[in-house]
Amino acid sequence: MSTSQAPALSPTPRSTPTRKPHRYATDRDALHKVLDAALVCHLGLIVDGAPVVLPTAYGRDGGTLYLHGSTGSGNVRAAAEGTDVCVTVSVLDGVVYARSLNNHSMNFRCAVVHGRTRAVTGDDERWHALRVISEHLSPGSWDYARTPSPKELAGTLVYAVDLGEASVKIRAGAPGEDEADLDAHDVWAGVLPVHTTFGEPVTADYVPKGVAVPAHVADRVTDRTVRPPS
Amino acid sequence: MSTSQAPALSPTPRSTPTRKPHRYATDRDALHKVLDAALVCHLGLIVDGAPVVLPTAYGRDGGTLYLHGSTGSGNVRAAAEGTDVCVTVSVLDGVVYARSLNNHSMNFRCAVVHGRTRAVTGDDERWHALRVISEHLSPGSWDYARTPSPKELAGTLVYAVDLGEASVKIRAGAPGEDEADLDAHDVWAGVLPVHTTFGEPVTADYVPKGVAVPAHVADRVTDRTVRPPS
Repeated sequence: MSTSQAPALSPTPRSTPTRKPHRYATDRDALHKVLDAALVCHLGLIVDGAPVVLPTAYGRDGGTLYLHGSTGSGNVRAAAEGTDVCVTVSVLDGVVYARSLNNHSMNFRCAVVHGRTRAVTGDDERWHALRVISEHLSPGSWDYARTPSPKELAGTLVYAVDLGEASVKIRAGAPGEDEADLDAHDVWAGVLPVHTTFGEPVTADYVPKGVAVPAHVADRVTDRTVRPPS
Repeated sequence: MSTSQAPALSPTPRSTPTRKPHRYATDRDALHKVLDAALVCHLGLIVDGAPVVLPTAYGRDGGTLYLHGSTGSGNVRAAAEGTDVCVTVSVLDGVVYARSLNNHSMNFRCAVVHGRTRAVTGDDERWHALRVISEHLSPGSWDYARTPSPKELAGTLVYAVDLGEASVKIRAGAPGEDEADLDAHDVWAGVLPVHTTFGEPVTADYVPKGVAVPAHVADRVTDRTVRPPS
C-alpha cells in the first residue's frame, strides 16, 4: 500500500506494467512531476482508422490535462471532439553505456495517459484552460502579453483529458550488467547525461533598443535547466 | 517542382499539409535530417482499439526506419507483427514570445512518418538493424561493447517502417505578429532558445580507476550539442 495520500495509479490493465515493475512509479505525485517537467507532449489519436502522433503544447491543472489547437487543423478537430487519445510526455535524462550492447539503455522519465477527450466549450473554463496551457509553456506571459481577442478565441479549440488512467516509468542511475560482464574490467561503462537548457534570449528585430528582456523570460535563463529532474 | 534529386514528400492526403504550407519541407533530405537529429521517437499504434504512444529508440538506414524491443512487452509484440503505426520525431528549438498570447509559439523540427510495420526476421537484416539502432543512440558502442548473444537476440523483436509516407514541419526564427501588435513598442518579443546537450560522463562504480572514458563517448561531450540544428 502506498503511504501517499494521492490515489494510486494503474487502475486498468493497459496502464498496469507487465514487466520491470521496479521502473514504474505508483503514485499520482510522480505522474504530476513528469507532466510538469516537459514542455511538449506527444498526442496520439486515431484518424481514418490509423494512428497519428503529434507534438503539441499542454498544461496541467490538478487532475486535468488541457490541450488546444487551431480550428483550421483537421487533426485538432478530430482530437477535440471527444475521442480516445493517448498523451505521452517523456524526458530523456541520459544515454546508458553498459558493457554489453543488450544492456545499453536510456535514462528517462515517461508518463503515458490514456483517456477520452472532452471539448472545453464554456467561456470560463476555456479562458482558464488557455491560461494554464500558456503558463506551462511560458510562465508569466499571460500577465504580460496581449490576451486573446474574441476572433482569436473563435479560432481556437480547447479540450481536456482526465488524468485518471496513466502509467509512469522512470529509469535512472548506472547501467545494469549481466553477471558475466562484470568481469570485463577493461571495458568502460557509465552514463552520459542529457541536459535540456535555455540559451540567451534573442530579441526580435522590431523591438526598440531599450526594451529589456522581462524577468519572466530572463529568469528562465538563469535557471538554465528547462525543468530539473525531481 | 523540387530541384532536389530525392523524391518529394507528401504523396498522400494525410501527409499533405492543409494549413501553413510554408512550414512544411517537401524534400526527403529534410526528413532524414530531422530523423537524424533526435535520439528518441514517439511510436503510435492501436492496441485493443485505442491509441498508444510510446517513446523508443530507433535508427535510420536510407529510406528505412528500424525499431526494436523486448519480446516480453505486449506493446512491442503488437508493433512488430505488421500493423499501422505513426512514428513521430520532434526536436524543440525554442519558446517563441510574441506580443500577443495567440502568436506565442515554439520553434521546432518535426517529422511524422505513417506506415505499416514489417517484422525483420532474417538473421542478417536483424543484425544490421540492431547495429543501425545502436549506432544511432550510441555511436561507436557496436565496435566497443559485447555484441548480443543468441539468447539476447532471441529476446529481441526487430521491425521496420518504410519512410515513403511522411511529412516534415519546421518552425524557426522570430515571432509572427499581427499588424496591430507591431505598434506595442514597449512590449518585449523574441525567442528563448532551447538546447539539448551532453553533460560529463558518469563512470559506473564497478569500473576500475584507470579505465578511461572511450573516445566515442568523450567526443560527444566535446560536441556538447546532441545534434546541431541543420
